[in-house]
Amino acid sequence: MVSVAVIGATGYAGSELVNILSRHDGIRLSHLCSHSYAGRKFSEIYPSFFSRVDSVLEEDDIKRIADDSDVIFLALPHGIASALVSSELLKEKVVIDLGADFRLKDKDTYEAWYKTEHRSPELIASAVYGLPEVHRKDIRKSHLIANPGCYTTCSILALYPLLKHGLIESSTIVVDAKSGVSGAGRGEKIANLFCEVNESVKAYGVASHRHTPEIEQELSAAAGEEVRITFTPHLIPMQRGILSTCYAMLKSGVKEADVEDAYHECYDGEPFVRLSPYLPETRFVKGTNYEDISYRIDNRTGRIIAIGAIDNLIKGAAGQAVQNMNIAFGFDERKALEGVAVI
Amino acid sequence: MVSVAVIGATGYAGSELVNILSRHDGIRLSHLCSHSYAGRKFSEIYPSFFSRVDSVLEEDDIKRIADDSDVIFLALPHGIASALVSSELLKEKVVIDLGADFRLKDKDTYEAWYKTEHRSPELIASAVYGLPEVHRKDIRKSHLIANPGCYTTCSILALYPLLKHGLIESSTIVVDAKSGVSGAGRGEKIANLFCEVNESVKAYGVASHRHTPEIEQELSAAAGEEVRITFTPHLIPMQRGILSTCYAMLKSGVKEADVEDAYHECYDGEPFVRLSPYLPETRFVKGTNYEDISYRIDNRTGRIIAIGAIDNLIKGAAGQAVQNMNIAFGFDERKALEGVAVI
Amino acid sequence: MVSVAVIGATGYAGSELVNILSRHDGIRLSHLCSHSYAGRKFSEIYPSFFSRVDSVLEEDDIKRIADDSDVIFLALPHGIASALVSSELLKEKVVIDLGADFRLKDKDTYEAWYKTEHRSPELIASAVYGLPEVHRKDIRKSHLIANPGCYTTCSILALYPLLKHGLIESSTIVVDAKSGVSGAGRGEKIANLFCEVNESVKAYGVASHRHTPEIEQELSAAAGEEVRITFTPHLIPMQRGILSTCYAMLKSGVKEADVEDAYHECYDGEPFVRLSPYLPETRFVKGTNYEDISYRIDNRTGRIIAIGAIDNLIKGAAGQAVQNMNIAFGFDERKALEGVAVI
Amino acid sequence: MVSVAVIGATGYAGSELVNILSRHDGIRLSHLCSHSYAGRKFSEIYPSFFSRVDSVLEEDDIKRIADDSDVIFLALPHGIASALVSSELLKEKVVIDLGADFRLKDKDTYEAWYKTEHRSPELIASAVYGLPEVHRKDIRKSHLIANPGCYTTCSILALYPLLKHGLIESSTIVVDAKSGVSGAGRGEKIANLFCEVNESVKAYGVASHRHTPEIEQELSAAAGEEVRITFTPHLIPMQRGILSTCYAMLKSGVKEADVEDAYHECYDGEPFVRLSPYLPETRFVKGTNYEDISYRIDNRTGRIIAIGAIDNLIKGAAGQAVQNMNIAFGFDERKALEGVAVI
Repeated sequence: MVSVAVIGATGYAGSELVNILSRHDGIRLSHLCSHSYAGRKFSEIYPSFFSRVDSVLEEDDIKRIADDSDVIFLALPHGIASALVSSELLKEKVVIDLGADFRLKDKDTYEAWYKTEHRSPELIASAVYGLPEVHRKDIRKSHLIANPGCYTTCSILALYPLLKHGLIESSTIVVDAKSGVSGAGRGEKIANLFCEVNESVKAYGVASHRHTPEIEQELSAAAGEEVRITFTPHLIPMQRGILSTCYAMLKSGVKEADVEDAYHECYDGEPFVRLSPYLPETRFVKGTNYEDISYRIDNRTGRIIAIGAIDNLIKGAAGQAVQNMNIAFGFDERKALEGVAVI
Repeated sequence: MVSVAVIGATGYAGSELVNILSRHDGIRLSHLCSHSYAGRKFSEIYPSFFSRVDSVLEEDDIKRIADDSDVIFLALPHGIASALVSSELLKEKVVIDLGADFRLKDKDTYEAWYKTEHRSPELIASAVYGLPEVHRKDIRKSHLIANPGCYTTCSILALYPLLKHGLIESSTIVVDAKSGVSGAGRGEKIANLFCEVNESVKAYGVASHRHTPEIEQELSAAAGEEVRITFTPHLIPMQRGILSTCYAMLKSGVKEADVEDAYHECYDGEPFVRLSPYLPETRFVKGTNYEDISYRIDNRTGRIIAIGAIDNLIKGAAGQAVQNMNIAFGFDERKALEGVAVI
Repeated sequence: MVSVAVIGATGYAGSELVNILSRHDGIRLSHLCSHSYAGRKFSEIYPSFFSRVDSVLEEDDIKRIADDSDVIFLALPHGIASALVSSELLKEKVVIDLGADFRLKDKDTYEAWYKTEHRSPELIASAVYGLPEVHRKDIRKSHLIANPGCYTTCSILALYPLLKHGLIESSTIVVDAKSGVSGAGRGEKIANLFCEVNESVKAYGVASHRHTPEIEQELSAAAGEEVRITFTPHLIPMQRGILSTCYAMLKSGVKEADVEDAYHECYDGEPFVRLSPYLPETRFVKGTNYEDISYRIDNRTGRIIAIGAIDNLIKGAAGQAVQNMNIAFGFDERKALEGVAVI
Repeated sequence: MVSVAVIGATGYAGSELVNILSRHDGIRLSHLCSHSYAGRKFSEIYPSFFSRVDSVLEEDDIKRIADDSDVIFLALPHGIASALVSSELLKEKVVIDLGADFRLKDKDTYEAWYKTEHRSPELIASAVYGLPEVHRKDIRKSHLIANPGCYTTCSILALYPLLKHGLIESSTIVVDAKSGVSGAGRGEKIANLFCEVNESVKAYGVASHRHTPEIEQELSAAAGEEVRITFTPHLIPMQRGILSTCYAMLKSGVKEADVEDAYHECYDGEPFVRLSPYLPETRFVKGTNYEDISYRIDNRTGRIIAIGAIDNLIKGAAGQAVQNMNIAFGFDERKALEGVAVI
């Protein structure tokens, strides 16, 4: 039995993590931590867990927790994980960080976009970007896994084969992404109130959203050249789901068959990527760890429109984190992550 | 391996049934039938099942299907099941009917409320009303299980202990129920269009909804006297969930402790009823087979307000149907039905 | 031109009030006040008003404001209005209070349900309960109008004719009400976040909601005897609207025609009550000052089910407040309040 | 009094038209027509109009209707208007067509995208594209006004100043648009059912949507060169609203001030375009005839992101149609179209 702690268990990603872990028969939950709700039952905060996960929430004292845990999930706002993690801790334990602190390989880029000092820059090099479809081999042996962001997972996987195979003009990429409200977290903000987001759609973080450099980092690595994109997130009146609509000009001479081959080469055999004949809808992946991907070519303009859909809390957060744990600990990668959306 | 057929697989209850069955490791799916979509892939109708359930839908030829099936689920409009089922079929096979045809023990009541002739009245007596918390013993040996309606499951379980233990004046019962839109089915009707139900709430079927006699039948049996109720269903702009708010006058002298005892005596040990300290919300049971029940006593008026919440497609349809199959075939009653709602 | 101030302009009821007043051609807006946002433009808080109402929000200094205002609307949490209003102020000005402080005629009842001391009990007697369909004559000459609550408006109007005409057993009344989320206000509370209320329905304030004594006060007056009811509010995942489903036993011998007559006698000629042949749906009155009312008789049980629907922010708050102003200042009662809902 | 007929009164755009016209004090409604519901009261189909618009729906016999009507609005599926309208009719009457038949100046383009023969190609030349901000002068004297599509209105107005002033590379334009469900109409289709669109987002009509050539026609005219764009519509789980997020590369040397000037030159003084300092959200324009427009420049990539928001049924259909009537008949352009969204 692998012993698992969750720090930040009462956010939306954290609670989804508890949910997935509670049906994983290879682990046991050693600690659920929440600074805001320490001392109260988890099921008091999330009554849906009543009679299933009634354990008492603890303060996030990472040393004490590490004592009897093999893996520690961090589901915290950026800037906190980098203060909690140390090289000592990583010697014996595996840390899977759902936050942003260890995703960007370049400390200056992190500090410029997040407008804060990085608290443990010496650990950045040892972190692996936890996108299994791209970095599975490294994830297997890593002790510090930087779980990708939600928008980034969805957008990178939709575009990766096109850049890996050199099929698009990388300077023409536009990613227009749409997310459900759970992506904004459980903070007590007016902007997240039902009456402020329901029955409306808006763009936000235009030309300035922090997931931009993360997408660029991975696409640049795939392309073997620096890639700069325009990324625009939108808020959709629904709870879960991200749809990334990605635009780029095909390179001259590229044919539909080349595109088809590129996607298949990258994803055939992947347990959680589905190259779907149907245009993706977020409802098709709701509550699952799938990313559905499809594309269309606009012959009138020479553009490809590649579309990816995920559940932002699963493949975009908790599900992918467990997928990473499964890889790192030698479990079947699918364990606790199977399931299909209905309505 | 138990061999399982689903007739009416492409309605909302049918597809939820396919979903639950596809993660049940004691059965195999022998046939998925759909009159409307015969010849097409199930995953074409429900792309969320792409790569998971791609089998081709068949016509509902029950004889052919029965050949290599041990259990046949019927998820059909009322009036059709009673024409399909025969005593020959029931000799060797188990039929679990999610429709209304075999729920009412009194043929005349059925015909009066459903305004149609019953097509196999001789089978009614052999049918068991498939509410495990009340009829588990009979379900075990039955070959014809009438799976309860969604409103009825939710309302009966909320009121049953009060009548079983004689704590309320049965002539004062009012059930005000609220349902998500999936309860109305997948029919191409203007009334079910997004723009007709979103951002609105309405009562419908006032003093005339067909689930009324079904609730009355079971409550009368519990009370040992004829019970007549007023039942009002409402449509709520959400996909899943039923909340039944049930009102009745407590009998003179009844104390809160009597009520508490009655609920515990009826439901302690039940795998899918949770006597919750929290007021039920449908989101707490979304995607699960639980019914959460809680109550409050209005000391100013002497009324009890008992509230139950279910997912109408799970405990109110497909989940309860699988629970019944698990009981009838000796599986662990929880198999394929565990899980917790997050958000 | 009547000069009008709004204190508490940035809550949902307050902003709806600004909206209605901004299309009223008999008034001019003298002051918009908001303690939370003083010094900022109204249209910064509500960008939908950009270019239409860009005035700067002021602190709620009622004396200064009264100087050049004829009528002052208060849209404040309970307990604040009673501290702001004084008999001096009321000598020259009209105050229309959208809060609860002056609705209950009995100070002790107020203090028991609101768990706070009343700060100007001497003014209670001079306040008029601002439900035009019942108290129009008194509203005409009042200087302190207590605008009714949202649930109460909807429920009282649905039941009033039945009690006024002595058609129901008053001890059997149950009101099961459903409200959109805007009724909970614009507070930064987790309970009001999109992800906490969307796709779910719940009861709250069971047997303890503060609108109970307000409904009882008015129904008692109509009946000429003390009426006690059970009132249960529910939260619905929509922005606006209240549906009150009201149950009561008809008195022996009462016929459908008696009921019909009672409703018509009370409401024929009323500009904002529609006795509809259709079962009310909140969408039919969204954005309007109408209450739609319909009823059905359950002959099996002898109960009447009377259903009312309003827009909680209009007839349940800002619209009724303007209706009261129109009456008090001799405007056409319909002014600025006409309009029909589409979808 | 101008006498007005509406053919196709019971669709969503048609009913919104009836709503707006019913508060227009310069006109009288002569006929409401609906092929599907002829003989029934309008308020039976839309009970929100009960007691306000109870007239009986008529068959769409355009000759009879024209007799006593000055202006005829057509809110019909494409292909029908072109069969109804004739040059005789247009001699004496004004026709405002909310459908697509007379929007495209090139018959072949129409027939290629709509896959149907045009039934009155000889009238195309006399039709004016009814976008007042661009064609106001021609609208004034036209007898055949082709009211623009919803996506097109929103997208053209957001991009028009950039092309008119030559500020962007026209080959780099991508329009990613998001629409509420009312845009799909009131047809009895599974795809429009609540449970099929709620809690999900999807792209559709990728690289093939019929509003593409309409946008291109107007942008080409503004640019003075042929413009080809990639246009992708998305369906959002809300009733009303369109947000168009438009991407293009700024021409070399273009500065933010040039962009600012271009927008102001085009729209200052326009009654229904608001150049907003706030990023547009569809809720800010819900129920109004405004288009809110804002833009941001992505200095890292040289792209401009121009964002427009409208209510698809108002500025995107019925409101703009009435705006066109106001212009053509010399009313104040704002008449019956003022108002602000609240929540």
